[in-house]
Amino acid sequence: MDSYLAAEFQRQRAARRAPTYQHLRRTLQHAIENGELEPQQALPGERDLAKLLDVSRVTVRKAISGLVADGLLVQRQGAGTFVAERIVKSFSQLTSFTNDLRARGLDPRSQVLEHGIGEVTPEEAMALNLSPGVLVVRSYRLRTAAGQPLALERTTVPQSVLPDSAEIGLSLYEAFAARGIHPVRALQRLRAIAFDAEQARLMQLPEGSPGLFIERRAFLADGRVVEFTRSFYRGDAYDFVAELHAE
Amino acid sequence: MDSYLAAEFQRQRAARRAPTYQHLRRTLQHAIENGELEPQQALPGERDLAKLLDVSRVTVRKAISGLVADGLLVQRQGAGTFVAERIVKSFSQLTSFTNDLRARGLDPRSQVLEHGIGEVTPEEAMALNLSPGVLVVRSYRLRTAAGQPLALERTTVPQSVLPDSAEIGLSLYEAFAARGIHPVRALQRLRAIAFDAEQARLMQLPEGSPGLFIERRAFLADGRVVEFTRSFYRGDAYDFVAELHAE
Repeated sequence: MDSYLAAEFQRQRAARRAPTYQHLRRTLQHAIENGELEPQQALPGERDLAKLLDVSRVTVRKAISGLVADGLLVQRQGAGTFVAERIVKSFSQLTSFTNDLRARGLDPRSQVLEHGIGEVTPEEAMALNLSPGVLVVRSYRLRTAAGQPLALERTTVPQSVLPDSAEIGLSLYEAFAARGIHPVRALQRLRAIAFDAEQARLMQLPEGSPGLFIERRAFLADGRVVEFTRSFYRGDAYDFVAELHAE
Repeated sequence: MDSYLAAEFQRQRAARRAPTYQHLRRTLQHAIENGELEPQQALPGERDLAKLLDVSRVTVRKAISGLVADGLLVQRQGAGTFVAERIVKSFSQLTSFTNDLRARGLDPRSQVLEHGIGEVTPEEAMALNLSPGVLVVRSYRLRTAAGQPLALERTTVPQSVLPDSAEIGLSLYEAFAARGIHPVRALQRLRAIAFDAEQARLMQLPEGSPGLFIERRAFLADGRVVEFTRSFYRGDAYDFVAELHAE
């Protein structure tokens, strides 16, 4: 790890003019993102880091406090600084955001940014197998836990399935369950993105921060599509895992 | 789409000082990443874009030519400018990079950046279920198609499985098959990252470009781990898809 940090720090310094603590902050961020520093791993002490990289302890402290504020590092009184744990989400089992976080002992919340009823758009019609003119309910939510934004989700459901968009409050899957609706299967598509200006503002992240864009269509046992959701997850908080099988 | 482009362009201009074509370039990049512009969708004509955003046609042309150079847009003589197709990779079936690209009619290549034999590191020992001191072969490859870098892959295999690191040339899975080794299952972990300075140089992308980090352990039918690979995929070229099932 030390040699990675030293080499990447030199590259950061060579690449652009910026205060030294920002070079160090980017270096540590890359090390965390790329697995050079693993979740729950202890960071070298301030004094050791300063010595390794030939910078002042003030610089080290400034870089670290920025990453603590971003949620990438956590400080434990008397124990030191550690790489934050990540939320691990299955990419092969259908689980809900709310349940994922409750299972980790967290208290998930949703802030509804927009909701309403309208005619299906051409894109929604394709995704939900609906005819033009059909009514759908929509909800755009900021999903948080422990006060930290984790994802932005834009969900569309046929109005024949959920009559009122206000029902999609905290958990879509709880709203479904309350009406006896149980999706059994989903198709997901995932890609890496950089948050645009508006998303970054809502997520309280710098613009261009790494994120995952996930599109999901969920199906009932009879094949009906009951959900079309486009989510943007924080790249620094989520890992997706799956088991793959030979064809 | 027009209203997204207009609003995001205004946000880009407000957020920082830069030449206007760079604001437009970032606006279009975000629209492609976030699905506002879909693969194979035609861009509005230069004249229409210039009018919509109240900028010169020279500015539009400069922004577009940058995105064509990045591989996000393609220009077809006489037909206009289109969003480039993406490579769709399964996150539930075990397929090889080489086969994925050949199936699309592309000619995948590998440039070996480093390879060799050595004692297993603690991280590799954990991933491969090996004892300290055991020998492994390693290969670090830049994977390309049509002259474009698509992924960086760092692979470790027990030397008892593949004796020589030079065998991991174009395709690890072809090297396995040549020795009668057939992985049947893999565990994968995926996260969003921003490319660091060194990765960006190798991938010919701007530093901080979005990418996917994927860690993979592949298993034989008898449970032995035969592969530990850490890959960095271009975010703008790859979509991962999977089918999810209720628990």
